[in-house]
Amino acid sequence: MMLALELAEKGRGKVEPNPMVGAVLVKNDEIIGTGYHQIFGGAHAEVHAIHEGGANCKGATLYVSMEPCAHYGKTAPCVDAIVKAGIGKVIAAIIDPNPITSGKGIRKLKEAGIEIKLGVMEFQAMKLNASFFKLMQQGLPYVIVKWAMSLDGKIATHTGDSKWITCEESRVYAHKVRGQVDGILVGINTVLRDDPLLTCRLEGGRNPKRIIIDSNASLPLHSRLLKTIHESEIVVAVSRNALPERIKKLRQLGCEVIQTNTMSGRVDLQELFRQLGEMKMTNILVEGGSRVITAVLEDCLADKVIVFIAPIIIGGQGANSPVLGKGIDAIAESVKVNEITIKRFSDDVVIEGFLKYKHRQGKDTMADSLRLIRPTE
Amino acid sequence: MMLALELAEKGRGKVEPNPMVGAVLVKNDEIIGTGYHQIFGGAHAEVHAIHEGGANCKGATLYVSMEPCAHYGKTAPCVDAIVKAGIGKVIAAIIDPNPITSGKGIRKLKEAGIEIKLGVMEFQAMKLNASFFKLMQQGLPYVIVKWAMSLDGKIATHTGDSKWITCEESRVYAHKVRGQVDGILVGINTVLRDDPLLTCRLEGGRNPKRIIIDSNASLPLHSRLLKTIHESEIVVAVSRNALPERIKKLRQLGCEVIQTNTMSGRVDLQELFRQLGEMKMTNILVEGGSRVITAVLEDCLADKVIVFIAPIIIGGQGANSPVLGKGIDAIAESVKVNEITIKRFSDDVVIEGFLKYKHRQGKDTMADSLRLIRPTE
Repeated sequence: MMLALELAEKGRGKVEPNPMVGAVLVKNDEIIGTGYHQIFGGAHAEVHAIHEGGANCKGATLYVSMEPCAHYGKTAPCVDAIVKAGIGKVIAAIIDPNPITSGKGIRKLKEAGIEIKLGVMEFQAMKLNASFFKLMQQGLPYVIVKWAMSLDGKIATHTGDSKWITCEESRVYAHKVRGQVDGILVGINTVLRDDPLLTCRLEGGRNPKRIIIDSNASLPLHSRLLKTIHESEIVVAVSRNALPERIKKLRQLGCEVIQTNTMSGRVDLQELFRQLGEMKMTNILVEGGSRVITAVLEDCLADKVIVFIAPIIIGGQGANSPVLGKGIDAIAESVKVNEITIKRFSDDVVIEGFLKYKHRQGKDTMADSLRLIRPTE
Repeated sequence: MMLALELAEKGRGKVEPNPMVGAVLVKNDEIIGTGYHQIFGGAHAEVHAIHEGGANCKGATLYVSMEPCAHYGKTAPCVDAIVKAGIGKVIAAIIDPNPITSGKGIRKLKEAGIEIKLGVMEFQAMKLNASFFKLMQQGLPYVIVKWAMSLDGKIATHTGDSKWITCEESRVYAHKVRGQVDGILVGINTVLRDDPLLTCRLEGGRNPKRIIIDSNASLPLHSRLLKTIHESEIVVAVSRNALPERIKKLRQLGCEVIQTNTMSGRVDLQELFRQLGEMKMTNILVEGGSRVITAVLEDCLADKVIVFIAPIIIGGQGANSPVLGKGIDAIAESVKVNEITIKRFSDDVVIEGFLKYKHRQGKDTMADSLRLIRPTE
């Protein structure tokens, strides 16, 4: 199963909004076939493994990181292929949280007389597809918030300069992360200040959609974003107050414009993220600035943080730190970041972890949802 | 020599203002004696090693992490003991930067016909005694600045709550650092807010002097600091504006009061640190708050930073980050922190490094001084 999970991981950034799935066929203690879901719309992991196993599949055991599908989607149901190949036993990590198929694949396999074992390395399998689970269960994309700060917690100098806080190697890693998400989200202030491209500038990296929070639809028509709209789509989130002629203009230039209700004159992030979920966006990377990061955290919409810490001191009462707003009153109320991992790129330190909110407004976090869904045998 | 350096390190926090020194005696490829300077006023490393070597010392080679002393201090000159023991060769890492003896020990040993080799692992030896070098060369204590912040760069909530940002294990490490310095320095605001003890609360840990930057001599007479003055000395740094009767009162209670010139109504830190250097304080740990940390950094007085980063998010426009003031204008002007090391205590990450200032005001940093002094053979 560990191998199946490792294989599955190879699909990251390519199969979304599908889940990453890996499969390993074993017969007489030997691996006779492996496969993983390689690209959205392509064959599923099980089909690749069965193809490799060929006639040998008869009586073999299939290890698969998620319940095989029982429905016609972009491809035919995997359960049919499994039954047809004569596989004797299926060991699956978790059931599919997708309501269309959830539990049906297992039932069909049982009906065909195939032995079933569920729940092997289930936690790891759920974590692997945390974003797929969130989308299926909550209808919301999985949200990663990223910032780069100095050793004294500043994301820019008091004049707004932020180029470059981190080193070259860190920026390569940041682009790698970009290549694994469906969308990058920034506020209009970041666009106005930096005129960024927001593309993945690594060879072979997928360009995510570029999402701009822009209440007044003020995205400059000469921005580098609009100039490169042919390279990757642009989604502009505007409030109900935005001028219709601006919205029309942006649409004419090829932008997708999402209009949300207004929250104190601003875009309603809850509504925006629900709409992004409906668009089947599985992973969103929030890159800044402080105002957007703060809003996403305050609305309990973020699941993971990636914090780059550069070995420099910036100082300044007027220099922004990453999270502003009102903030918490007492340390005991702070938002905890769990399962910390540390990376190092040259002298930059990168701390990554998962957010654990107190159940404000009755919302569940990913960490909690992971505990809610348990495969039933 | 590596062993000599490791032995020397054992004296940290006990021998200051003396340097840490280790010595290893070798004869016929065997170690016949080892020693290190254990406690201020006690025997030097060479004497311990020679005592262990006994009659065997004749013709042996002495590895020592710093040039043996040639002057009468708290103990008799080591060179005399070396000559008397009949040691054939002395391999020393560096010459002693103390002007009283610098180079004299080597000269005396040469005159006695002992073979000399200098400069073995010199960089490591200088680094080990960086604070001793700074005190000898610049008359200033070595300054470590420490702060604990959240993952979003806050040292307290907007209400001022900071207990506890870090975890238990981190705080044990922080107390270990306290036990290795001669003085802990904080601003009066920290005292007024937290009423801290500033002692080393580890068993066997040495209590450093407690230094309070207190322009107006407003240290509360009922503070826990004053109540524990018998446990460890208190130095109060006041400006020329402080009321004489307050100063008198503090002195009556047993505080050492240092009065400095006034820099925009505040204590002149340059002058204070020179005075602390004259008091032979070798290592000072600056613990906060933001205002004092900022002033120490702005005056290029700090040599090392220890930054505790806790896996929590505090947020808040009004929550202080560790370094305030005006700050730099452009990232290119930032103060670099070098030779980064990373520690982890539970989910806290501790980043330590050495400061590299641009030569503002023509000041040399420790890193530069290390390069300035080279042993001459």
